[in-house]
Amino acid sequence: MNDPVDLTPLRTALETDDLDGYLIDADASDSDQRYVSGFTAPDPYQTLVTQDGVHLLVSGLEYGRAESEAAADSVSRLSGYDYHEHRAKHGPYGGKLHTLAAFLADHDVEFVAVPRSFPTGTADGLREQGLTVTVESEGIIEEIRATKTPWEVNQIRATQQANEAAMATAERLIASAEINDDGLVLDGTPLTSERVKEEIEVTLLRHGCGLDETIVACAADGADPHDRGSGQLTANDLIVIDIFPQDKETGYFGDMTRTFVRGEPSEEMTRRYEVTQEAYEAGLEAVEPGVTGEAVHDVVCDVIEDAGYETLRSDPTAETGFIHSTGHGVGLAVHEEPRVSPSGGELEPGHVISIEPGLYDPAVGGVRIEDLVVVTEDGYENLTEYRVGLEPVAE
Amino acid sequence: MNDPVDLTPLRTALETDDLDGYLIDADASDSDQRYVSGFTAPDPYQTLVTQDGVHLLVSGLEYGRAESEAAADSVSRLSGYDYHEHRAKHGPYGGKLHTLAAFLADHDVEFVAVPRSFPTGTADGLREQGLTVTVESEGIIEEIRATKTPWEVNQIRATQQANEAAMATAERLIASAEINDDGLVLDGTPLTSERVKEEIEVTLLRHGCGLDETIVACAADGADPHDRGSGQLTANDLIVIDIFPQDKETGYFGDMTRTFVRGEPSEEMTRRYEVTQEAYEAGLEAVEPGVTGEAVHDVVCDVIEDAGYETLRSDPTAETGFIHSTGHGVGLAVHEEPRVSPSGGELEPGHVISIEPGLYDPAVGGVRIEDLVVVTEDGYENLTEYRVGLEPVAE
Repeated sequence: MNDPVDLTPLRTALETDDLDGYLIDADASDSDQRYVSGFTAPDPYQTLVTQDGVHLLVSGLEYGRAESEAAADSVSRLSGYDYHEHRAKHGPYGGKLHTLAAFLADHDVEFVAVPRSFPTGTADGLREQGLTVTVESEGIIEEIRATKTPWEVNQIRATQQANEAAMATAERLIASAEINDDGLVLDGTPLTSERVKEEIEVTLLRHGCGLDETIVACAADGADPHDRGSGQLTANDLIVIDIFPQDKETGYFGDMTRTFVRGEPSEEMTRRYEVTQEAYEAGLEAVEPGVTGEAVHDVVCDVIEDAGYETLRSDPTAETGFIHSTGHGVGLAVHEEPRVSPSGGELEPGHVISIEPGLYDPAVGGVRIEDLVVVTEDGYENLTEYRVGLEPVAE
Repeated sequence: MNDPVDLTPLRTALETDDLDGYLIDADASDSDQRYVSGFTAPDPYQTLVTQDGVHLLVSGLEYGRAESEAAADSVSRLSGYDYHEHRAKHGPYGGKLHTLAAFLADHDVEFVAVPRSFPTGTADGLREQGLTVTVESEGIIEEIRATKTPWEVNQIRATQQANEAAMATAERLIASAEINDDGLVLDGTPLTSERVKEEIEVTLLRHGCGLDETIVACAADGADPHDRGSGQLTANDLIVIDIFPQDKETGYFGDMTRTFVRGEPSEEMTRRYEVTQEAYEAGLEAVEPGVTGEAVHDVVCDVIEDAGYETLRSDPTAETGFIHSTGHGVGLAVHEEPRVSPSGGELEPGHVISIEPGLYDPAVGGVRIEDLVVVTEDGYENLTEYRVGLEPVAE
């Protein structure tokens, strides 16, 4: 079980703004919902945070499981607030809105804050029943989520271990491939980006993780950080592999990138790899509490600019060089707070961040090296145990 | 490429209500967004339907892909409406709201309808800029989505074929298992629900499909239609396997259920299987245009009640017997319109529905048989080619 979540900053904000509660209406694919409720369900349910606790409203179908699993001080079911009567009078949707209003009244909530993503249908439906609904636009929950409990760090570490197995699968395939005129070939058939991705996903699945997308991008494809890659992998070209799986059980993500060349890298490829590795090491060394994400990003940019490459810092319109930020928080979402970018604030113990410098040019290809680390009291701990090296090894 | 989507019912409703447009603000995990835009992106983007077309607003990052892939009459990027200036003045979030308002003004939209799920942050942000935002609460898009184009039917059929391969994997594992005192054993290790689910998922993945959850529920687990199942499978017990994969490329779902017993089913198990099969066949035969989902459900309930089992029709509080509805629409969502239930309206050609009667009792286990069919001009076509039979076959 997760450690209890500390919602003090949210409660302080509610008090300051004279609000009675904070309401989430979403299914568990919403990271804030999952985090605050400590519960997952495929259909929307409601989580209310008040000064005195966290209160869930769920369907009868989910009630038993919510009672035993949710990190809530109370769990109510729709029928506990006369859902069937409301439904008979107002239809299924209107009935739910009236049931929700009764649940809020029961918790003395009249002025309620909601996240930006809160459904307008629910907000307007509550307003029609006399409640005051205001949007909380600071993203307080996301800010709370940025600092991980030791339990959360362990979940992320576990996902990252599955990720290491998946990366090893990909590296082995590339190292084992033969080279013919068209590119890489394995067991007599072309080794494509799609084939490597499939084996990555099977490995993750065998470790209890899933993914929506993964990047295996060769040559010019890899020079666009958002290209997922496709087609046969080619020899003597940079291959960027970026894997960000999610544990199916806990919901926590991992994130790692390595870059390989099967065959002979050009001198420029090797140089870019070395510069990226230097920037990655400098970035890691800069991570400690009190340092800002911006400062870490600056250290990385310094290394890259000193080597003669462009960054978005040296030229905001750059299309080659280091054209993204240094990193981002990872947790129940693959991109979350804090940022390791020009807008990144102070790092704190418990922040889990990626450090992922890269160098891109369609004429050369892409290089990116990425680890996931947790900020500790006096520096950082690397949650990633995977060799850095341009040449793929089959072992 | 998909056939063009017919948004006439939406446009008629907009005209009737004197509204200038319908706006979706969601990422492509929202089925309506994916359907109307013909585009997928991991971050929210905006789709506007007016009388003269479908208009997308996307980030610069997605612009090129949206231009070539989206089913839109126009694609704009944020920077086309001075996003950088708005952002400098109002911050990243406020800047987007002002950019969106400029995009709407450019399309002469002042009175705008939005779905229930539309983000309150965006709705209130537009209202502050003088727009009138009203929630469209009829679910018109979901209603339009219920009728599939021939292209869509082919996508669903393709997913269902992957599903058949996955079901065959599961059936083969169960048929090949040995039986010892604890239950089913394969290759010397217990054959668990989890192990069967993993092999189902690997098979789906090899066919380009993924899934969030699947059901392999044995004995009493299978008597709760919402239990996903866990632990070692046992001999002489009913095993319900319900698989609902989604194609990773097209987004269309399949859905199928079979029930097996490894070993000797009891007489009551066999009888329940036969009654369920009879209800399933009667339900299928009832499917044709003009018949209501309610009528199909009634035919299924008739068979089950005539055999002496309870249904929610004969007793709305029943906890054993046939305790769910007969079926539901399947498309970009695994549960969508139309319903084959007491509230189900007229079936129309192009509706894709499941027919899935079942019988449940913790003392006996669960039985469910489910196929996916498309309503045709004069009846239905079954999109599922998978043998019905209680005894698993290894072949």
